[in-house]
Amino acid sequence: MIAWKNMDTLAAYQAMQDAARVNLAEAMSGENGAERVKRYTVPMGAGMDFNFGARPVDDGVLAALAQFAAEAQLTEKFAALYNGEVINTGEKRRVLHHLTRGQLGEAVIADGVDKREFYAGEQKKIAELAAKVHAGEITNADGEKFTTVVQIGIGGSDLGPRAMYLALENWAKVNGTLKMKAEFISNVDPDDAAGVLSKIDVAHSLFVLVSKSGTTLETLTNESFVKDALAKAGLDASRHMIAVTSETSPLAKSADYLAAFFMDDYIGGRYSSTSGVGGAVLSLAFGADVFARFLAGAAEADKLAKNEDLLANPAMLDALIGVYERNVLGYPTTAVLPYSQALSRFPAHLQQLDMESNGKSVNRFGEPVSYVTGPVIFGEPGTNGQHSFYQLLHQGTDIIPLQFVGFRSNQMDSDVVIQGSTSQQKLCANVAAQIVAFACGKEDENRNKYFAGGRPSSIIIGDKLTPEALGALLAHFENKVMFQGFAWNLNSFDQEGVQLGKVLAKRVLAHETDGALKVYSDLLGI
Amino acid sequence: MIAWKNMDTLAAYQAMQDAARVNLAEAMSGENGAERVKRYTVPMGAGMDFNFGARPVDDGVLAALAQFAAEAQLTEKFAALYNGEVINTGEKRRVLHHLTRGQLGEAVIADGVDKREFYAGEQKKIAELAAKVHAGEITNADGEKFTTVVQIGIGGSDLGPRAMYLALENWAKVNGTLKMKAEFISNVDPDDAAGVLSKIDVAHSLFVLVSKSGTTLETLTNESFVKDALAKAGLDASRHMIAVTSETSPLAKSADYLAAFFMDDYIGGRYSSTSGVGGAVLSLAFGADVFARFLAGAAEADKLAKNEDLLANPAMLDALIGVYERNVLGYPTTAVLPYSQALSRFPAHLQQLDMESNGKSVNRFGEPVSYVTGPVIFGEPGTNGQHSFYQLLHQGTDIIPLQFVGFRSNQMDSDVVIQGSTSQQKLCANVAAQIVAFACGKEDENRNKYFAGGRPSSIIIGDKLTPEALGALLAHFENKVMFQGFAWNLNSFDQEGVQLGKVLAKRVLAHETDGALKVYSDLLGI
Repeated sequence: MIAWKNMDTLAAYQAMQDAARVNLAEAMSGENGAERVKRYTVPMGAGMDFNFGARPVDDGVLAALAQFAAEAQLTEKFAALYNGEVINTGEKRRVLHHLTRGQLGEAVIADGVDKREFYAGEQKKIAELAAKVHAGEITNADGEKFTTVVQIGIGGSDLGPRAMYLALENWAKVNGTLKMKAEFISNVDPDDAAGVLSKIDVAHSLFVLVSKSGTTLETLTNESFVKDALAKAGLDASRHMIAVTSETSPLAKSADYLAAFFMDDYIGGRYSSTSGVGGAVLSLAFGADVFARFLAGAAEADKLAKNEDLLANPAMLDALIGVYERNVLGYPTTAVLPYSQALSRFPAHLQQLDMESNGKSVNRFGEPVSYVTGPVIFGEPGTNGQHSFYQLLHQGTDIIPLQFVGFRSNQMDSDVVIQGSTSQQKLCANVAAQIVAFACGKEDENRNKYFAGGRPSSIIIGDKLTPEALGALLAHFENKVMFQGFAWNLNSFDQEGVQLGKVLAKRVLAHETDGALKVYSDLLGI
Repeated sequence: MIAWKNMDTLAAYQAMQDAARVNLAEAMSGENGAERVKRYTVPMGAGMDFNFGARPVDDGVLAALAQFAAEAQLTEKFAALYNGEVINTGEKRRVLHHLTRGQLGEAVIADGVDKREFYAGEQKKIAELAAKVHAGEITNADGEKFTTVVQIGIGGSDLGPRAMYLALENWAKVNGTLKMKAEFISNVDPDDAAGVLSKIDVAHSLFVLVSKSGTTLETLTNESFVKDALAKAGLDASRHMIAVTSETSPLAKSADYLAAFFMDDYIGGRYSSTSGVGGAVLSLAFGADVFARFLAGAAEADKLAKNEDLLANPAMLDALIGVYERNVLGYPTTAVLPYSQALSRFPAHLQQLDMESNGKSVNRFGEPVSYVTGPVIFGEPGTNGQHSFYQLLHQGTDIIPLQFVGFRSNQMDSDVVIQGSTSQQKLCANVAAQIVAFACGKEDENRNKYFAGGRPSSIIIGDKLTPEALGALLAHFENKVMFQGFAWNLNSFDQEGVQLGKVLAKRVLAHETDGALKVYSDLLGI
């Protein structure tokens, strides 16, 4: 029997508070530090490892975290989720994104349908369409092949798919699987759509309209924008557009689209990269085989998230160390720092995933919690970030836990040797150096050159950013966020905090405003 | 006589602590809220306004801030800076980036040279080169025009120029001044350079190598990468490369470059967008006239920063409200949220500008300070962010002050009317709505749909994002960061925190490691 309890009512929470604090700079020094880094590593799927040697824990803290995992029933809650219980209690919905990439538990029958079969079936339909587009069986009206795919969506329909596309674009180029270039239109700012349209060849572009409800204002607005452009170019929009939506949406059966693919209310936007939301654009861009490999990587990481043993469950471990840093050590922010240019927009995706899921002040029963919850997430790729905000990370007055990602090899073939090392070696040397610099610091009589150290980080290490590695990376963070939501006793799957702004924006557009809202509207010329 | 004192030694700091706190939700309600928003606005140059109606201040708090500004001698310190005193005491350097766009005070003679004339002269040389490239007087070896300019630089040589280019790319398109497309190579990850090279036509590309010292490892590595590519294409690299560097750097007199333009140690990387670092790439991309308009906008904002009257000095006002939020109210993070897709990378630039300048724990004399300093800065353009991390901003357990930017008109000609409003109107309606939603919140019996409000923001409003507006926006934030550094008694112009990582990375590449550093190096395959 699962009990949903606030974190601060658990005995293990007290144990976390009581566990002796780790002096990280000391623990990471000398041969003990070396042993620690070797020992504190866990496989996380697709050949990658989660190394937490530089996080502020030791065997004592880990024991408290394991006690917490058991008392908070984290793996039981995950099982309830993947077996189809209504975990999103606010919206009274199941949470089934794991089924888009595998069957973790029992068959989930909802609305008379086996949901695993449903999601896999949609993916198969997408694969068939993609194959026809690539083969030139589906073309524009002049019988010419489509060369570009443009995703129209916002939030989860944009950030995840865009980050995944960028992550694999160069990999696909050198592996000969870049079938179509992808572009993305998201913002209601008309210059976003106009800017993208000004640089593509619309006659050879296929647009993927993504909106679960079929009513997202930004997305419908941008659809009209694109349809205007197609009409002006003398093109039949219905030959250039496909939809990814729910079966009950107005877009589902419309003749306006070449095809429609379905998801449902059990896939939250920010968890939808492995559904048709990511599947259509990525299968068109890279081929369905590459997308299938991405799903296989995610499924591998999902399986590890079932492990009850904290030290064999990297997502749960990452989650609980994060909770420890947030609630016991009091660090309000976390940075995500991939040492891979291909992951340039991965932090922006995690920002939504994490902050929209766990940026909440009430528990799953709608009662205020008396502890802090989701941190602010930000990040940029290294080494770029080193030349930007790392100054504050090293010597600022706040401590910010860091999540590094690094790969032994780069994706493309080219590299260059300068001063005796390749660029890839320099990249890897830098991330290794940063971890130790943050953890251990450096004494200096000149306080301006002094580094206090004690700044925690972990690193996910893989051989190369392949489709499988990317899938595992994505699933790792999805599952981490889920476990943190369980720990904080939140509903991580609704987003009521976005509603008020929508309501007021409608009021502004209807000119039904008064007070400050009217003044701002006037100042902005509406 | 200027006295450099720690913030907590000033009487006005106590006055800030003692000033009655503002109940923002209450203050922003009803007709009083409307009056407040109308009144709390300050012109900030280039036709823009800084509106702080929704920041957590009132006339009482503002009086304490004005007292602080006077006691901390903020405008005197700015005058010392622009008159050429050695403000960057750590590195024993003047701080002269304001001279790249105007003469604010006395002539500054350094190294026997009038620095305003020097910077203006370099800009003139750049303008001449750009004109020749655009006119086809400088071409590739086949006599063909260059169509693409590629900046090679990292940190301040990348983030600012890249953000400025993206901010004006679409504006230039519709105004007929997009002379060359710009691309950027920054990361030492070899896939960054390879990725950019795979999508450009190197035969028609001009590369701008930017490194003040001429020794930045990432940049020299990427230069070699590019030279290899040029050689493979049978091209003479020296006809395709220009350098922006200091006169004493190894790049200054090299025959490897078509031309070299100079800056000096008085222009910090993160403050260099208005120097040749931004000037070369932006003049080549848009024409020197557009770059001159950008400088004029920055100069306008600089002039306002001289005002002793806090309420006529938007940068100082923004700075001190930020200090109040950070040190009195205890908010650790600030979000920058431009409602303009063109400003998509402006937050990444501000992240460096702010966090590298003020992410410090020691004062300008190298003594530890006993108060918190620079906050974490992050952000994404709206409305995209609304569908991402705004959940946490509205309902998370931490309060995060917000800096909105909005424009009445978009940059491009196209727009579309859907449901009775244009996309631009929807964009503006959303930002107005968000400000009020954050400030005022909303009661609801269902605590999951309840918004506490009291979440502060300001907004910078302009007509359109023109070169002048962009210049003023950039200078506003540069000056804000400078004033905050003065308030915290920091040296905002060095970055010792980036050194340790560099030293350790070299050790890794030389295989001179032990302990944890050796283990990480092994794990990463170096």
